[in-house]
Amino acid sequence: MPLRFLTAGESHGPALLAILDGLPAGLPLDEALLRRDLARRQHGYGAGPRMKLETDTARILGGVMEGQTTGAPLALQIENSDHARWKGRAVAPFSTPRPGHADLAGALKYGFHDLRPALERASARETAARVAVGAVCRALLAEFGIQVGGYVVSIGPVEADLAGLPYAERIARALESEVSCPDAHAARQMQEAIRQVMQDRDTLGGVIEVVALGLPPGLGSYAQWDRRLEARLGAAILSVQAIKGVEFGPAFQNTRLPGTRVHDAIRLEAEGGWLTRPSDRSGGLEGGITTGQPLVVRAAMKPIATTLTPQPTVDLASGEETETRYERSDFCPVPRAVVILEAMTAFVLADALLEKLGGDSLDEMRPRFDALRRARLDDLHVDGQPHIFWPE
Amino acid sequence: MPLRFLTAGESHGPALLAILDGLPAGLPLDEALLRRDLARRQHGYGAGPRMKLETDTARILGGVMEGQTTGAPLALQIENSDHARWKGRAVAPFSTPRPGHADLAGALKYGFHDLRPALERASARETAARVAVGAVCRALLAEFGIQVGGYVVSIGPVEADLAGLPYAERIARALESEVSCPDAHAARQMQEAIRQVMQDRDTLGGVIEVVALGLPPGLGSYAQWDRRLEARLGAAILSVQAIKGVEFGPAFQNTRLPGTRVHDAIRLEAEGGWLTRPSDRSGGLEGGITTGQPLVVRAAMKPIATTLTPQPTVDLASGEETETRYERSDFCPVPRAVVILEAMTAFVLADALLEKLGGDSLDEMRPRFDALRRARLDDLHVDGQPHIFWPE
Amino acid sequence: MPLRFLTAGESHGPALLAILDGLPAGLPLDEALLRRDLARRQHGYGAGPRMKLETDTARILGGVMEGQTTGAPLALQIENSDHARWKGRAVAPFSTPRPGHADLAGALKYGFHDLRPALERASARETAARVAVGAVCRALLAEFGIQVGGYVVSIGPVEADLAGLPYAERIARALESEVSCPDAHAARQMQEAIRQVMQDRDTLGGVIEVVALGLPPGLGSYAQWDRRLEARLGAAILSVQAIKGVEFGPAFQNTRLPGTRVHDAIRLEAEGGWLTRPSDRSGGLEGGITTGQPLVVRAAMKPIATTLTPQPTVDLASGEETETRYERSDFCPVPRAVVILEAMTAFVLADALLEKLGGDSLDEMRPRFDALRRARLDDLHVDGQPHIFWPE
Amino acid sequence: MPLRFLTAGESHGPALLAILDGLPAGLPLDEALLRRDLARRQHGYGAGPRMKLETDTARILGGVMEGQTTGAPLALQIENSDHARWKGRAVAPFSTPRPGHADLAGALKYGFHDLRPALERASARETAARVAVGAVCRALLAEFGIQVGGYVVSIGPVEADLAGLPYAERIARALESEVSCPDAHAARQMQEAIRQVMQDRDTLGGVIEVVALGLPPGLGSYAQWDRRLEARLGAAILSVQAIKGVEFGPAFQNTRLPGTRVHDAIRLEAEGGWLTRPSDRSGGLEGGITTGQPLVVRAAMKPIATTLTPQPTVDLASGEETETRYERSDFCPVPRAVVILEAMTAFVLADALLEKLGGDSLDEMRPRFDALRRARLDDLHVDGQPHIFWPE
Repeated sequence: MPLRFLTAGESHGPALLAILDGLPAGLPLDEALLRRDLARRQHGYGAGPRMKLETDTARILGGVMEGQTTGAPLALQIENSDHARWKGRAVAPFSTPRPGHADLAGALKYGFHDLRPALERASARETAARVAVGAVCRALLAEFGIQVGGYVVSIGPVEADLAGLPYAERIARALESEVSCPDAHAARQMQEAIRQVMQDRDTLGGVIEVVALGLPPGLGSYAQWDRRLEARLGAAILSVQAIKGVEFGPAFQNTRLPGTRVHDAIRLEAEGGWLTRPSDRSGGLEGGITTGQPLVVRAAMKPIATTLTPQPTVDLASGEETETRYERSDFCPVPRAVVILEAMTAFVLADALLEKLGGDSLDEMRPRFDALRRARLDDLHVDGQPHIFWPE
Repeated sequence: MPLRFLTAGESHGPALLAILDGLPAGLPLDEALLRRDLARRQHGYGAGPRMKLETDTARILGGVMEGQTTGAPLALQIENSDHARWKGRAVAPFSTPRPGHADLAGALKYGFHDLRPALERASARETAARVAVGAVCRALLAEFGIQVGGYVVSIGPVEADLAGLPYAERIARALESEVSCPDAHAARQMQEAIRQVMQDRDTLGGVIEVVALGLPPGLGSYAQWDRRLEARLGAAILSVQAIKGVEFGPAFQNTRLPGTRVHDAIRLEAEGGWLTRPSDRSGGLEGGITTGQPLVVRAAMKPIATTLTPQPTVDLASGEETETRYERSDFCPVPRAVVILEAMTAFVLADALLEKLGGDSLDEMRPRFDALRRARLDDLHVDGQPHIFWPE
Repeated sequence: MPLRFLTAGESHGPALLAILDGLPAGLPLDEALLRRDLARRQHGYGAGPRMKLETDTARILGGVMEGQTTGAPLALQIENSDHARWKGRAVAPFSTPRPGHADLAGALKYGFHDLRPALERASARETAARVAVGAVCRALLAEFGIQVGGYVVSIGPVEADLAGLPYAERIARALESEVSCPDAHAARQMQEAIRQVMQDRDTLGGVIEVVALGLPPGLGSYAQWDRRLEARLGAAILSVQAIKGVEFGPAFQNTRLPGTRVHDAIRLEAEGGWLTRPSDRSGGLEGGITTGQPLVVRAAMKPIATTLTPQPTVDLASGEETETRYERSDFCPVPRAVVILEAMTAFVLADALLEKLGGDSLDEMRPRFDALRRARLDDLHVDGQPHIFWPE
Repeated sequence: MPLRFLTAGESHGPALLAILDGLPAGLPLDEALLRRDLARRQHGYGAGPRMKLETDTARILGGVMEGQTTGAPLALQIENSDHARWKGRAVAPFSTPRPGHADLAGALKYGFHDLRPALERASARETAARVAVGAVCRALLAEFGIQVGGYVVSIGPVEADLAGLPYAERIARALESEVSCPDAHAARQMQEAIRQVMQDRDTLGGVIEVVALGLPPGLGSYAQWDRRLEARLGAAILSVQAIKGVEFGPAFQNTRLPGTRVHDAIRLEAEGGWLTRPSDRSGGLEGGITTGQPLVVRAAMKPIATTLTPQPTVDLASGEETETRYERSDFCPVPRAVVILEAMTAFVLADALLEKLGGDSLDEMRPRFDALRRARLDDLHVDGQPHIFWPE
């Protein structure tokens, strides 16, 4: 798979870094483009005070010359503005693992004598680096008319009603909403639910939907288990902090219906001979491959583990049962997580597109993209003859 | 990641194959062990007539000498008994893609002039090879007291009630159930639902839960996005034909609850100083790492796309709208899919265990496993001191 | 990297297998094509008696329908004809490790109680599976006019004189030579040297040159260390049993010369505006990328470790110093190893070509190949302007 | 394979970066340790004026807290001190590709309109990032008593005579030599040769030997082609700029000798029951696995392509044949390349060691290392019995 990335850096360390390797040459990129997505990760209703500290900008330290990618690996760096305050300072011990966090697992795995190293790396602060990577992948996809967007579908028990709203419209409206929800009525209820949970000193999770529009059919493959796009997208989404479930289209709901009500009919448009799919319950993937319909991924985000309300834990230093204790917390990161899931989706789709197109520069890729077989009768060459598939 | 596998082979070709590379030496293996899991994939309520044709046995063609693995790659071969009937025979054209299958996507991607090559490889027949691979991984895990099992949680609208039933008991009961469901009452209703859907010439999907018991804490990592166990398990599960959703613990349900009701308290057992987690809503993973609690993965399986009831499609040869037409079909593969999801789970866990333990033979791995840090206060060395984490 | 393969199987087990994953659809393949290369691996001057036992044919068990690849993984199986004689038979203990073999390393690594499992997998018998894989990759390259061939450059102290002989001619002549050497005079001396070493009950190694003709420029990359073609080809060649050195062009000789005598001048052909390189001391690679010149890889093969003349060793069972003892051996596999190195070279080049072209079928790849930028002035767009590469 | 790294950054860009992912926790690291190796890459006889500009220090931006690794990915950054001079400045066009460089290949591959982007990334400046990565891997190996060192064996036609000089002594002496050569007499001749080539406005290559001492037996494997240590080390070495050949032990020389003179006898030490190998012509690897003998890799470095003496080329902007033109150049980087090859060797060996030991912290790895099976009769369990390897 042509594209790969690694991130590094801690939550209060000097900086976060990402190296994205495998981009073609010729993609226009600048720091402003990255800033837009980084800002979406930081601002939104329900952000805790920490969010205010950061105003992220990603510096491009490699891979771009004259404002365009060169085919060399892209290097991105986001400074942690409050690192200065942590340098050389003895920090109070952290010995009470938070339920729902990597604190205890990290101490068991790595043998730490303080829980801080685990939380420093496991923290969602790392997703800033992913958002920067995703912004670049999104820019690549945009060159081919592919749009990746997302929105909040539910927060706690409040669900949006999006029936009949086209995907492009959902994406557009979410960008205008403080809770990234295209349904204004639900958005108000979500804000109210967040307000309530703040008062309750608790936290809320939710469900996010990410959509890709304009994808060609034929990305991904059923040929080998790890080439299926459900597997690759699922891994990317589930790799995000606090994401614990994923489905393509309404997959869990589909399990309750008979097959004839789940599958998307194949129809022929009179005009132009296009094969169309009036519905999209598959989420845009059949057999691990894009159908050319909108790709729809839904992700379940758990409520944040750090709650102002104490939770039962054990002080690992004293060996006593105790409670977690915080003075500040993020109450509901769901609206701000949309852009992170978009980023991971964009990464996998850019990878799959590069796989399909090959090539080392946008100039090389463009005519290849234009020549792709589309869901059109004329592009297919099915001949309706009997065949001998296996020789005697 | 130390373990990897590839499968090959078509649904009606001469054989399916798998190569599993990276096993340690010294694991006892024989074909009987594989046969047990292969049989589970074939037999169960709601299997269509095709299932009866096959009685799978996997031959071990490499990697085992004197009944034990040698560290060499394992080669597994499962013959397709009905290949003989297809050899040298002209087969009727297949030009009407089935909604929900890879037929159309495959023709668009690869440019086939008949839809058969796509279905031959995309078909769930391939999962026989994965089940054989999984049986081996399960045997490896069993050497360390780790058990992987699964069961059906719902079929169509019928849901099992498993409240209060211990996991080991669920697994045991599912093995006795024709629909792999530990709740006898629900099982009867599931059979009834399947009977009904057969009569309706339709199909049903469902939800499967796979559980791993006896896992040590500390497998997987938050250190890099693609090392998180949610990502790796999610990819493996979502790579299975017809699986379109996955969650760890009740993740979608958790999105509706406040944080204080979702996270698993950390408690101290008076006896022995064990850190315990009275609940397991996390599904056994925190920060991408096993907690030592039961690992619980839930998967949404769509109803099978091949329905006896016609579905709207297009004849790609004639260019006419038409309907799919079948004489036989599998009506509900959910009970038989349990072992496939177990297989993929076992593969990822065996990989993660090998990563943690290293080593080239069971003899080398065993003392390492015994020395692993457990969720016990004495194993942890958290000191409760202030620390200078970053130098000036 | 789009293409990958695994092999499995032991020297005297039932069969060798290979799965080659990532091939495009539409490549014509049959077992005859594989047989040709497999025969070259078996026949040649200096083969020991074992070679006579085997007459390898590779069955294609997956990935091919109607005589063409389908995009599904290719499955290849080569039966071991003498497995029958080993089944169920107690075999004499093997406890004296052979210097130069994996016997001792294997026993230390895996803890074997007999040395046979190590030799069964480490043996060069496994290369039959690679040769089959390579034949397929060679067929893919041939579709684009790329030829991969090889020949023996030296055996023991006897060196061929190939000065002035074009590469295509070298390849053609080697196919006619019993020792795969294009220089008839040297070939006779090599045969004489082999005859002598047989009489001496000893073995001989040599140097093999593999050449690829017709490659487009631009395969591989300097962008990341593991994308450089020297690294990828080097790994592939050095992964072959008994190969202990590799160089691109006359690299070791080049270290003795000043830079001005090593580098290949860049010239312009009056006709057609082609950039030419009158020499090819680089071996066809600059900066990890094909130049479009012939690719030339040279490999050092050690003399086979199994010699009829006893070598000092230790009986690991008795704990006594002793000597190796054999009744039969291969004396000089160098001529027959040519096709193995061709196979590994073809694999890497096919992988790099797929990376450059992308695509899922030959039909999709062909116009992309034709449109590749060539080493022609008109294809380049260097503008000779001053540029601002990094913004203020 | 547990360890992986990516680098990014250009020669005159703001900085070089590396992310090294997969390190265990608990390894003491500081910037001083990195500086030592970085300095070795910069200083030595024959360095051109550019070398003087740089005084590299690597900042650790992630993966280290309290002076120790945490299991999180390591982030390293090396600033380019002269970037400031390039910012916002229009740079003279570069349109005449240098023979032996990636200039032309890069323009063909990526379609650049100026050759600078290729040289910026293909340049050996990137190796500074690798040296920093290697210093970390070397520190990890040192924790287990494994030493990686190297020295110059020849420069141009001048060869060192190292017969009888123990490896540890060679490494120590090379550190004292301006040309990294342990043979003082040859070192003087090498300096003279470099002086001469400076006067001739030409460049010189050479041969470097890298050695690893204290390795346990059993790293690497013959089980799969890409697990063999020759392949992995070969790829790493050949991925270094200007390295065009590699051999393990005197591999090319070994091709000229009969088998009985090449293979390393296996002997038993009376004291302690150690299996010993009085010679080491194998370079410390048999069957892709470390033998426990010194690992010896030899690499051929071509003379640098940038020569003050003009070489024939073509101006790609004007389309005229012309000559390369430089005012400054590095004349012989061979002595300074030693540390780069050590770095790549250390990376592969650290990876192979982590594979063998597994584990997430040094504390976890140490007892495992101590328990490794060594080349001692008592550690082996070969029983000298006849065995039935394949059942009937």
